[in-house]
Amino acid sequence: MADNKTLALIGCGLMGGSFALAAQQAHQVHHTIGYSVPHASAHHFYELGIIQSIAASAAEAVAQADIVLIAVPVASMPSVFAAIAPALPDHALIMDVGSTKRSIIQAAQHHLGARFSQFIAAHPIAGKEKAGHSEPFAHLYQNKNVILCPESQSNPAYLKQAHSLWQAIGATPIILDADQHDRGLAAVSHLPHLLAFAYMDALLQQPDATDLLALGGPGFRDFSRIAGCDPTIWRDILPDNQDQILPLLHAVRQAIDTIENAMMQRDTTQLEAILQRASQARINWK
Amino acid sequence: MADNKTLALIGCGLMGGSFALAAQQAHQVHHTIGYSVPHASAHHFYELGIIQSIAASAAEAVAQADIVLIAVPVASMPSVFAAIAPALPDHALIMDVGSTKRSIIQAAQHHLGARFSQFIAAHPIAGKEKAGHSEPFAHLYQNKNVILCPESQSNPAYLKQAHSLWQAIGATPIILDADQHDRGLAAVSHLPHLLAFAYMDALLQQPDATDLLALGGPGFRDFSRIAGCDPTIWRDILPDNQDQILPLLHAVRQAIDTIENAMMQRDTTQLEAILQRASQARINWK
Repeated sequence: MADNKTLALIGCGLMGGSFALAAQQAHQVHHTIGYSVPHASAHHFYELGIIQSIAASAAEAVAQADIVLIAVPVASMPSVFAAIAPALPDHALIMDVGSTKRSIIQAAQHHLGARFSQFIAAHPIAGKEKAGHSEPFAHLYQNKNVILCPESQSNPAYLKQAHSLWQAIGATPIILDADQHDRGLAAVSHLPHLLAFAYMDALLQQPDATDLLALGGPGFRDFSRIAGCDPTIWRDILPDNQDQILPLLHAVRQAIDTIENAMMQRDTTQLEAILQRASQARINWK
Repeated sequence: MADNKTLALIGCGLMGGSFALAAQQAHQVHHTIGYSVPHASAHHFYELGIIQSIAASAAEAVAQADIVLIAVPVASMPSVFAAIAPALPDHALIMDVGSTKRSIIQAAQHHLGARFSQFIAAHPIAGKEKAGHSEPFAHLYQNKNVILCPESQSNPAYLKQAHSLWQAIGATPIILDADQHDRGLAAVSHLPHLLAFAYMDALLQQPDATDLLALGGPGFRDFSRIAGCDPTIWRDILPDNQDQILPLLHAVRQAIDTIENAMMQRDTTQLEAILQRASQARINWK
């Protein structure tokens, strides 16, 4: 039976808590034991009924677990792997929910030893759109994609289990290699976030920033929305995936330069041609 | 009575057609005479009942008008002013709906002569979010801001009339000088559009563009949405307002460089500080 399983949740935030709630509601998990730094988050989750017990350490949390979900900021992953490695049961499925994959896989490989075959790197494409506290909710992952990045050493039985588990909570698993994941996410998430943060910051530098922002309408609202994301998440993701972000940033700079030149030369023919192909591509997208 | 007024609509697209429909429904206008290049657009509007007669020229359209609305792309404004100037009645309110204001006002001043006192430059902050054909609808301007930019030569009676007219169709008039308008719109609209177009174009240059775009989620959807806007509108706006766009683009490049440097140096403290202030500003916005 699936529903007698114990989940160890390392990190008590929106992503992990929503997974725990969804897995319980889908009868994939019977009991969740949580561990979090800060400890207050685990206590809060216990009071909300998201976890049913609190562990004193990450190692204690995983010791009796059938499923381990590591839902901490990207830069904290290596220390979590190091802490849990000695205590991991030999049958536990181990997953993360980090926004980058190569560095997390590398850290898992380094710290988990033989247990690395039980690790399936996962990135659910869902989450909070604003910084600050958000309570978990069971349907966060419904109708969302989750990218799974198995390695050659991954035991196929664990990949199959991970696949079923995410499907059971309403997500659509997509299997990619970690390079494809990190390049793809750099293109459709990491670099747009960098640019949105930079855009807001550039406006803030203006002496009349308040007047400018007051004029923002629906276009500005959507373009800048992701600048409201959690800085403690993004300060980790950007450096971690910089080798994928930088070449794309170079391409964006070139595209900006090309439009700028056409604009300055009032070359409306060339300008329209560029805007036309960008516009058509955006309209054709999904 | 307000509702015995005749509206001359120059340009039969979403912006002008929606104004005509709204003004008729609000009993501000009794009869609309339309003129458009291409002529097929005016015929289409006639068949839809948006206009009640078709003029053979812009001058013919305005000859009997109480209100003239010029709703053509920014670069076509000067030729419209030149064409209508000799035929304008001495009591007609004249407005445009263009996305830039200084150059349009300058062209109006140059071509309208004494009738310039009847001209109130207007920019309703509403419109289509995707390129291609969109039928007009009467509530386009409801609960939207419309920026009015009177000049020192503007007759206050016409400003008052323009104000009442936009209010009557559900919009909120904001009075700004043309410099403030053009700088503000560069910041919250023109430059975001330039960057969104450039972003899409940079992705299209990638050999694996299709794979990258397939991974886009809600963040990418919102960030890139305005890249789907009409290239024939934007090829005019960007060159027209370039002197306001360029200094802001310079500031955005600097903000990108600063984030890039912190990212490359893995200076997560500085990076978090920048992202934190950008994020907080975005959360505090409206």
